[in-house]
Amino acid sequence: MPENIEKILPLPETPCELWVPHITEILRAEIQKTGLTKAVLGVSGGIDSALSLAFAVKALGAENVTAYLMPYETSNPSSEDHGKLVCDHFNVKSEKIEVTPMANAYFSQISDLTNLQKGNVMARLRMIILYDRSSQNSALVVGTSNKTEGLLGYSTLWGDMASAVNPLGDLYKFQVRALSKFLGVPSELINKPPSADLWEGQTDEADLQMTYDIADRILYNWIDLARPRSEIAEKLRQCEHDPALVEKVFKRVSFSQFKRKMPVIAKVSRRTINREFRNPRDWGM
Amino acid sequence: MPENIEKILPLPETPCELWVPHITEILRAEIQKTGLTKAVLGVSGGIDSALSLAFAVKALGAENVTAYLMPYETSNPSSEDHGKLVCDHFNVKSEKIEVTPMANAYFSQISDLTNLQKGNVMARLRMIILYDRSSQNSALVVGTSNKTEGLLGYSTLWGDMASAVNPLGDLYKFQVRALSKFLGVPSELINKPPSADLWEGQTDEADLQMTYDIADRILYNWIDLARPRSEIAEKLRQCEHDPALVEKVFKRVSFSQFKRKMPVIAKVSRRTINREFRNPRDWGM
Repeated sequence: MPENIEKILPLPETPCELWVPHITEILRAEIQKTGLTKAVLGVSGGIDSALSLAFAVKALGAENVTAYLMPYETSNPSSEDHGKLVCDHFNVKSEKIEVTPMANAYFSQISDLTNLQKGNVMARLRMIILYDRSSQNSALVVGTSNKTEGLLGYSTLWGDMASAVNPLGDLYKFQVRALSKFLGVPSELINKPPSADLWEGQTDEADLQMTYDIADRILYNWIDLARPRSEIAEKLRQCEHDPALVEKVFKRVSFSQFKRKMPVIAKVSRRTINREFRNPRDWGM
Repeated sequence: MPENIEKILPLPETPCELWVPHITEILRAEIQKTGLTKAVLGVSGGIDSALSLAFAVKALGAENVTAYLMPYETSNPSSEDHGKLVCDHFNVKSEKIEVTPMANAYFSQISDLTNLQKGNVMARLRMIILYDRSSQNSALVVGTSNKTEGLLGYSTLWGDMASAVNPLGDLYKFQVRALSKFLGVPSELINKPPSADLWEGQTDEADLQMTYDIADRILYNWIDLARPRSEIAEKLRQCEHDPALVEKVFKRVSFSQFKRKMPVIAKVSRRTINREFRNPRDWGM
């Protein structure tokens, strides 16, 4: 009889009472130290942006947060409904700006784009809208990407990965779920299958070819607990899960490293941006 | 009689013979280690993108480089002419994809945008096109931002600052000029006043309210030579330039620090992306 994965590769409890004030305070401090008091964020109708919205409201007050709904013409109408639901729930004003006109302006210039290419265009158009609206409203863009997708590279560089400050960037998907429940995100958003909603029937887990549960157990054990990958594979084998998933995760993380870094600069000087020229001393403080 | 600025705040000679092979090799190595052999870049008709093009051709061969001309309807026609001129000069194929349809699709949804807001939208739309075309062509995006504009923040975050590898990121404007002459960039591009070409008559130096020559002397002395800012101000006074420019530069660099960093992540775990989880050890290599 196979061993139980929960016993053999356990995930830790999420210390919600501790983390909620901690994350809220980071978000508030990062925004306030720029001299600003307001935030904008994109709300997709999914759990991640719902949790970011909840943190933004706790940090700044609902009156200082504006949510943007940015559907494409093929987006599932339920996504917009869920987006509105969570805005209503947290008393946040929302604006809808469709990406359809801009996206189709490009898709009609360039033919034969894959779904993946189209999805990247849409994610980046949403970044453009959010950054433009943040500039208009003297607000900062709050990020909505979690640690699981950041590590797996299941996200668009300069698109949904772009923000000023990201309350979710160090939270695995299971922790996003726990904190969302804790903060009262409507259960419709928590219980539906995660989807980037780029085409009908798309789900994250089908794209990734693994469940978030397995991905989180592998990532948490490898990255946070620094366990050898071979040991994690052996444990997966013991509970009759595919041990090859470990290398699959490793390859995804490794391949997507470029998405987590600023552009590589050809270094010639003694003090290069983001090398020698980056630490607080440089600011005379 | 005022002292001569060239004598009192000198800029160093650019060691072109040394730097050209060095920068070329970094560019080649960074692209090849991803397993790719091709590059795309945006060519604006200005000197910076012309020099990046020259480096890309040296690193990969002209046949592996594609230049994109991405004018907006108000762009100066001479910009496109200069872009084509430099592509012809280096035997690089070019494609023209206008940003006008996408940009106007947004401008007609959202009214009352300032020139600055419109310029940021255009810069980011160009990023979208370059990243999409790079994905289509299995190529990497080569950056075209220099160190002067990177430090002054005279550039668009997630727009022209976005690239996979940037041969110019550690070169001040005076070094871009010297290397461009050395590599045979057509003199029309070297001699015209730098402009982001977002509206008629725009020039970088009018936007910055200082010349690149002064900006480079201040930045080079402060950042590369680590001289106290008060000393640089005193030297400017001696040669009858405005000493207040030093603090103006400092404020620009300080204010734009966010443009040179990835998004701030609210840290809760032991190993956070771009903190503990970033060094080569993490790759098991």
